[in-house]
Amino acid sequence: MSISILRTTDAWWVATPTGAAKIDTAATTTAQLLADRPAIDRAGAGTVPIESLDLVSPVSAPCRVVAQMTNFRSHVKDSGMDPESIPLTFFRKTSGSISGPFDDIVKPGHVQFLDYEVEIGLVFGRAVPVGTKITDANIADYVAGLVVTNDVSARDLQLPKTQFYEAKSYPTFTPVGPALVLLDGDELKRFTDLRLQLRVNGELRQDMLVGTDMIYRPTEALSALTGFQRLDAGDLLLTGTPVGTALSAPAKPVEIIGSLLPPATKWKLFFKRQANNPKYLHDGDVVELSVATDDGAIDLGTQRTVVRYAR
Amino acid sequence: MSISILRTTDAWWVATPTGAAKIDTAATTTAQLLADRPAIDRAGAGTVPIESLDLVSPVSAPCRVVAQMTNFRSHVKDSGMDPESIPLTFFRKTSGSISGPFDDIVKPGHVQFLDYEVEIGLVFGRAVPVGTKITDANIADYVAGLVVTNDVSARDLQLPKTQFYEAKSYPTFTPVGPALVLLDGDELKRFTDLRLQLRVNGELRQDMLVGTDMIYRPTEALSALTGFQRLDAGDLLLTGTPVGTALSAPAKPVEIIGSLLPPATKWKLFFKRQANNPKYLHDGDVVELSVATDDGAIDLGTQRTVVRYAR
Repeated sequence: MSISILRTTDAWWVATPTGAAKIDTAATTTAQLLADRPAIDRAGAGTVPIESLDLVSPVSAPCRVVAQMTNFRSHVKDSGMDPESIPLTFFRKTSGSISGPFDDIVKPGHVQFLDYEVEIGLVFGRAVPVGTKITDANIADYVAGLVVTNDVSARDLQLPKTQFYEAKSYPTFTPVGPALVLLDGDELKRFTDLRLQLRVNGELRQDMLVGTDMIYRPTEALSALTGFQRLDAGDLLLTGTPVGTALSAPAKPVEIIGSLLPPATKWKLFFKRQANNPKYLHDGDVVELSVATDDGAIDLGTQRTVVRYAR
Repeated sequence: MSISILRTTDAWWVATPTGAAKIDTAATTTAQLLADRPAIDRAGAGTVPIESLDLVSPVSAPCRVVAQMTNFRSHVKDSGMDPESIPLTFFRKTSGSISGPFDDIVKPGHVQFLDYEVEIGLVFGRAVPVGTKITDANIADYVAGLVVTNDVSARDLQLPKTQFYEAKSYPTFTPVGPALVLLDGDELKRFTDLRLQLRVNGELRQDMLVGTDMIYRPTEALSALTGFQRLDAGDLLLTGTPVGTALSAPAKPVEIIGSLLPPATKWKLFFKRQANNPKYLHDGDVVELSVATDDGAIDLGTQRTVVRYAR
């Protein structure tokens, strides 16, 4: 059965039906905790209400944060591209961007178009050297569990710069949690039954089943990633977001005219139009993300963050 | 006066006029070595010929490897873009891609168009928290020294994927060294006098002075980088490459026609034409990189690598 790990600034916890049970461990990082499995399995006696805990990200930084670009058919189409020919593509985020599941998302003053992306994060449980062959049969040996993540994105930096790194790496741009949910091999097979949902001020903006929409699933993605990239316990891979972000691609004729313009002019016109798009995040907006199977057998929990403008 | 640090698998060395002097230090990482400055300053007695040493990268992994995209006017124009409006843009490489200054560059079997980019690497000497104000007056407090680097790039992965991460992150895709050259504030002011050169089989392919061609110089680049990104001692920033890579942009009319095609079709046609471009790297090619001021006062040394096809 899945185990939900919670973290506070000074302790690790297991969620139980009666509340959070403290884990008796010296671990200070996610990697160390995952190496201390006996301590996790021993936890249980003497619980406290989960609501009484001030939760931080169950994935500790520093770690590698790798992300898959456009990986849901619906989002690829909404980005003006073809799902049949979109390549399997990775980029990096700083792990300094990781923040807690109930922390504020802070918009830097120079950012205008702040967007959200609900994603499932894979957390690695052991070292994965370059060249490791990942298959459906052994993936659970490497992937310890799953987390809810928000791949917060400054679209006005992301698109003109073309490389996504800065636009997705400001502090608080990767809220993670509430729980790191450890899964066994059979549970991980239900990955495709997970539904991602994101609400802004209660309005459902993203709502999609993995199985009907994800292009490059974990086994395929990790097979490619381990072709060039070492991973270690505690590292995090974000697996992409479905349709429903604030950003939506321009219609095809507009895009073709845009491609004839110098990029700086094209983006200036594009963001002038985006100023009328009310879906971007504003000061005080409440962003709620949840990921679970519809039958509730696997539930990564609900993340609730509030957007704040930096002063 | 600048100090050239060399590294072998089991020791650190200072280059002196009579040879390499071993540094009496317990440091195993570049960060630890830079924190042990007294040991560096004490080195000198009992030298061995530098040629007798089997040098590895003077920048140890793991570390952060951040890189500036298109940052020389000549390279921006050669990439079909406008130097006046190109944004200051960063991306990441894996530090697992770091290799030694005389190691082979290994081309993976699935890569067809392997390219080179001579770049100056900045090596940080202390922690740089997010929000650190970097100015001409204090930059030498943070930047400990410079290294020669090659930003090896698989163009047939880089362009269709759009995100540069994978294409530039395979093992041996970041040869570093031979020397980590420590500079004081006055020496760092001569950064713009540095000349980058790269030869393939003796043919000069890249040859440019920083001062006449670099767009975003270190103070400006670091001011932006520290706006979102923490850095630590031993981290590495690549500062971009001038004109002369194998890859060169298609002519403008071709590009406009290309922009009307689906991306997969566009890139297929593009690389069909590139197959006739003899400048890409092949098995056995010798790639030599050097960076120095024309008066020789600052000399980062010469890196010499050989391209090998993976079997």
